[in-house]
Amino acid sequence: MDEFGFIAKYLSALAGPEGLELKDDVAVWKAPKGFDTVMSMDTLVEGVHFPDGKFDAQTAEKLIRVNISDLIAKGADPAGYFLSLTLSEKIDEAALNDFCRGLAQAQSRYGIKLWGGDTTRAKDRNVLTVTLIGTVPVGKTVLRSGAQVGDLVCVTGCIGDSYLGLKTVLNQMDGVDSQSVYWENIYHLPQPPFNLRHAIRKYASAALDISDGLLADAAHITDVSGVGMDIYLTTIPLSTVSTKWVLGEPNHQKARLELATGGDDYQVLMSVPERKISALKKRATKVGIALTVIGKITDGLGVLCQDSQGKEIIVDKSGYTHF
Amino acid sequence: MDEFGFIAKYLSALAGPEGLELKDDVAVWKAPKGFDTVMSMDTLVEGVHFPDGKFDAQTAEKLIRVNISDLIAKGADPAGYFLSLTLSEKIDEAALNDFCRGLAQAQSRYGIKLWGGDTTRAKDRNVLTVTLIGTVPVGKTVLRSGAQVGDLVCVTGCIGDSYLGLKTVLNQMDGVDSQSVYWENIYHLPQPPFNLRHAIRKYASAALDISDGLLADAAHITDVSGVGMDIYLTTIPLSTVSTKWVLGEPNHQKARLELATGGDDYQVLMSVPERKISALKKRATKVGIALTVIGKITDGLGVLCQDSQGKEIIVDKSGYTHF
Repeated sequence: MDEFGFIAKYLSALAGPEGLELKDDVAVWKAPKGFDTVMSMDTLVEGVHFPDGKFDAQTAEKLIRVNISDLIAKGADPAGYFLSLTLSEKIDEAALNDFCRGLAQAQSRYGIKLWGGDTTRAKDRNVLTVTLIGTVPVGKTVLRSGAQVGDLVCVTGCIGDSYLGLKTVLNQMDGVDSQSVYWENIYHLPQPPFNLRHAIRKYASAALDISDGLLADAAHITDVSGVGMDIYLTTIPLSTVSTKWVLGEPNHQKARLELATGGDDYQVLMSVPERKISALKKRATKVGIALTVIGKITDGLGVLCQDSQGKEIIVDKSGYTHF
Repeated sequence: MDEFGFIAKYLSALAGPEGLELKDDVAVWKAPKGFDTVMSMDTLVEGVHFPDGKFDAQTAEKLIRVNISDLIAKGADPAGYFLSLTLSEKIDEAALNDFCRGLAQAQSRYGIKLWGGDTTRAKDRNVLTVTLIGTVPVGKTVLRSGAQVGDLVCVTGCIGDSYLGLKTVLNQMDGVDSQSVYWENIYHLPQPPFNLRHAIRKYASAALDISDGLLADAAHITDVSGVGMDIYLTTIPLSTVSTKWVLGEPNHQKARLELATGGDDYQVLMSVPERKISALKKRATKVGIALTVIGKITDGLGVLCQDSQGKEIIVDKSGYTHF
């Protein structure tokens, strides 16, 4: 099967009208009146962002979800995407079929279609890139730069499960049991808070998705907003199984810090004016997404991580650097 | 240097305002009123689309130019781009510096800015992806599907130089002399007919850029337009050095066919209503771009390649398939 055969057999079924049935070199699109176009691009590399050999429906879903996560944190509605598949020689048609099944599932979940892209071959490893396009009412994109002194800092979902999932995948965790399966699933299939995106747009003063580690990403907000942030380590929300893991570790604080710096959470960290917090919480409850206040914006500099007594915790490495 | 250091040191200087100084996860953009957004995505893989180890200013330029080529053929004006760099462990700072110099040159030539992207590491080889965004007045994108029976078929520039350049790079040509350098340069630095883009929009009924090989790409037009195309092999424009190469080959027709199916030309193939051809030619002359009529659109099926006596030439392989 050559490139055109692959497109015709698998990708055409995923295409939206903007993609001209994937029979041209471009997509043509017009943002609805009154809307900005918001775009992000993320790449997953085999052996770095997903395990060697795992070219399947879950990895396709993850590829879409890590991009969806970027747009959600900006309060945007996703519309379509471009896909670059650089595939190793090992990929066979069964794997392509499964991968495209994952794309179709993700498209249906997030209401997006394929608009175009490129397929190429490499000898060694799969490299997968998505450019995701979405819309936000003009001027309403939630940036990293809007945090104001006095705002509360909130996070969606639970933090650290994906980190423990990666450790499980890398065989760095003792034993394999139901917890490991839970963590692994979160690592392979991040759960960005899609249904909260409009509330984020309405209530957050600044926001981003957590990919590098909560504390590292928090520092991106303080850097760009020119503010400080206090974060209370023990208030960072953990799943039941991750709490159990923390309590089983010799040093609880060190274990919590590991989770707060592990990355790959794809939850949203945001600053919210205090007067808006109850409305946001109500909305989060309604759509079934956990929302936890974990700190506040200060007139200081950078991120100050504190223990439950308000004592500063020294952080050696606040997150993962991809490069 | 980590990812953030690289962005701060090299990429920030390339960013446009839409890219929010590369300090956020997204770009925010509003197409001007009355314009569609046109987007393309192309990937270059080391060892496939550019030589092993050639991560330099020329490859950066090529990466931009192959995407520019897509937009030009659609009559679009490029505006900005996303860049995904998946870099091997071999890349050092001097190479990054040179690569970014190439990006800056291409940006300046085509009036575009960097809007965002992703940088990741792979062990083995560099994989480079660009998503290019541009504009066309609403509904005026030149598609592959508009060719009409009776239209003339034209091509810009010269065909086959890049193919002979690739053969030179792969040491499949005898000797190295000034011709080889000429061909190699075209292969490394394609010359898409940027200054003809508005005329293409105004006069062409269908168009695409030639990347897979002239005859293969011609078939993309006939397939989607539901027409036939006669192409006269001896009228396909060749550079002086490539003409010399043809005349030095034992079988001239076979040599011409090789050039017409070699690919990587990044020239534009288009169908043009006969009454518009002189206006288009005048415009091409004005901007210094060669334009040659090489055939016509018929009520047949597919591409019919003919010799100078009008006899059909059987084509075994009409172009390169990337996959």
